[in-house]
Amino acid sequence: MNDLPSRVTIQEEGPREGFQIEPGPIATERKIELIDALSETGLEKIQVASFVSPKRVPGWADAEAVVAGFRRKPGVRYHALWLNEQGLMRALAVEGLETAGSISTTTSEKFMRNNTNRGFEENERVQRNQIEICRKNGVSVERIGVMTAFGCNFEGDIGTEKVLWAVESMLLIAEEAGEKVKVISLADTMGWATPGSIKRVVGAVRERWPHLRIGLHLHDTRGQGIVNAYAGMEMGVDLFDASVAGLGGCPFAKMKGAAGNVCTEDLVFMCEEMGVETGVDLDRLIDAALLAEDIVGHPLPGAVMRGGSLMQLRRQSA
Amino acid sequence: MNDLPSRVTIQEEGPREGFQIEPGPIATERKIELIDALSETGLEKIQVASFVSPKRVPGWADAEAVVAGFRRKPGVRYHALWLNEQGLMRALAVEGLETAGSISTTTSEKFMRNNTNRGFEENERVQRNQIEICRKNGVSVERIGVMTAFGCNFEGDIGTEKVLWAVESMLLIAEEAGEKVKVISLADTMGWATPGSIKRVVGAVRERWPHLRIGLHLHDTRGQGIVNAYAGMEMGVDLFDASVAGLGGCPFAKMKGAAGNVCTEDLVFMCEEMGVETGVDLDRLIDAALLAEDIVGHPLPGAVMRGGSLMQLRRQSA
Repeated sequence: MNDLPSRVTIQEEGPREGFQIEPGPIATERKIELIDALSETGLEKIQVASFVSPKRVPGWADAEAVVAGFRRKPGVRYHALWLNEQGLMRALAVEGLETAGSISTTTSEKFMRNNTNRGFEENERVQRNQIEICRKNGVSVERIGVMTAFGCNFEGDIGTEKVLWAVESMLLIAEEAGEKVKVISLADTMGWATPGSIKRVVGAVRERWPHLRIGLHLHDTRGQGIVNAYAGMEMGVDLFDASVAGLGGCPFAKMKGAAGNVCTEDLVFMCEEMGVETGVDLDRLIDAALLAEDIVGHPLPGAVMRGGSLMQLRRQSA
Repeated sequence: MNDLPSRVTIQEEGPREGFQIEPGPIATERKIELIDALSETGLEKIQVASFVSPKRVPGWADAEAVVAGFRRKPGVRYHALWLNEQGLMRALAVEGLETAGSISTTTSEKFMRNNTNRGFEENERVQRNQIEICRKNGVSVERIGVMTAFGCNFEGDIGTEKVLWAVESMLLIAEEAGEKVKVISLADTMGWATPGSIKRVVGAVRERWPHLRIGLHLHDTRGQGIVNAYAGMEMGVDLFDASVAGLGGCPFAKMKGAAGNVCTEDLVFMCEEMGVETGVDLDRLIDAALLAEDIVGHPLPGAVMRGGSLMQLRRQSA
């Protein structure tokens, strides 16, 4: 059946993305409860917190307390987001967190200026510095990220050559520093992608760097997250970021346009039904999704958490 | 790019499906308002009402008033659902409605018994009678439908051979009666399909009856509606039922498991972004979706209605 991978890796980002955007406040112990539930689902990698400035992201002011409190499940790799040396030091101070370095850029200088007040040139300096910080702390840089790889609210459609250029610029920086990149993460930051652009961009990147693994970070702003993941899989992509219950998004008008990552359990459902292994127990993941909805206190966008898995229906009808 | 059709036809079922399931009551003039808005979007075919028993479907007790009240837009084909002679007579009494006959079955006798208290054999009698009724009234039967073509809550997974058998049984009945079937409509009635089963079933049906057009009716119970439509398009399918805003579904726990058809504007967005023509003006369709949400008074599942089209963003960034 096509070129689908036999197994995909899903990196759970729900807790980090969700608790960052929710108006909250959400109690530390409830965040821990969700992470503990996710640990029991078979997910191999969970992003559990964000070590960023509490002024900018008040939802993660309790990052230290959260990472101190959750149960480390053997076999699960726990990560946290950090953006600068201060954040890295906070992450390194925590036992049982995996710290991996990454550098990133975007295809759109307008977006970069808007988001970080930097131009491309200054960003390259910042990313070189990021590698420095990592090396100084014994953290290797194995991943490069490209935001707005499929379109940008500030710059419109993004040509394939811009994505190739962005990937290349980061690979050069990593190479200069002696780092061996393994993963290129392409992000549909603003939900512009459809299967056509996924195939065009992933195809071009894969052709140019066939030895590197491609990951997709797909925002579900326009309901295309699942189909874009499928289009990626048809191109051999086997690495996806996802959010349990679609945390980070909200079907309410009051949070108009807020859309999280593609929903983890909807993605797991599709994969497992097609015989693509995820290692995840869907029923447990659905329980975690319902817990997430209970914690944030409003409906979340996930569908399978409402529709249910097919396991029980199969058993009943057998 | 693959085997995607250059153009797809979308049959709008939102008003009929939505107003049937909403707890309501919804004022007749608001139903008319939505139909009038949909007429201006470029959709070629709209199912505007349900001529069924008001006892069974109280939401459509005002079907006559609704169909009397909407503006007929030249070029748009308006349909209504009817299930028996009484319903057909009601539909035929209305000016400006297209009446087309269809016969249908399911792959699952257990579901059929549960749904209509019939077995396969009795259903064949009923469908023969349906053709009789159509012929008597000068209505041709050009469409056969197969429900639960991708899985069934009562019978579990459905083998391809069951679908082929179901299609064949209906084609035989139509042929015996001298009717020329043009469309085979395959329904994922309970949201079991993923791209793998879509390709397996559509591929087998297309191979067996290459001269017949295949339509897909995809329920979005598990968030797979859009990806299933895409998988269908990859197999050459160019005919889809859809519901504006995802009417008929609801992201609320109080309507747990309620899921409408695939959302029209999310489907139109995907198609148009990939260069697959729909004939629909997405911005007008989004306005109609927001109107639908206003009419039912609770959030509906559509995503593009919240995320917005890309047209304005493209203009701004040009």
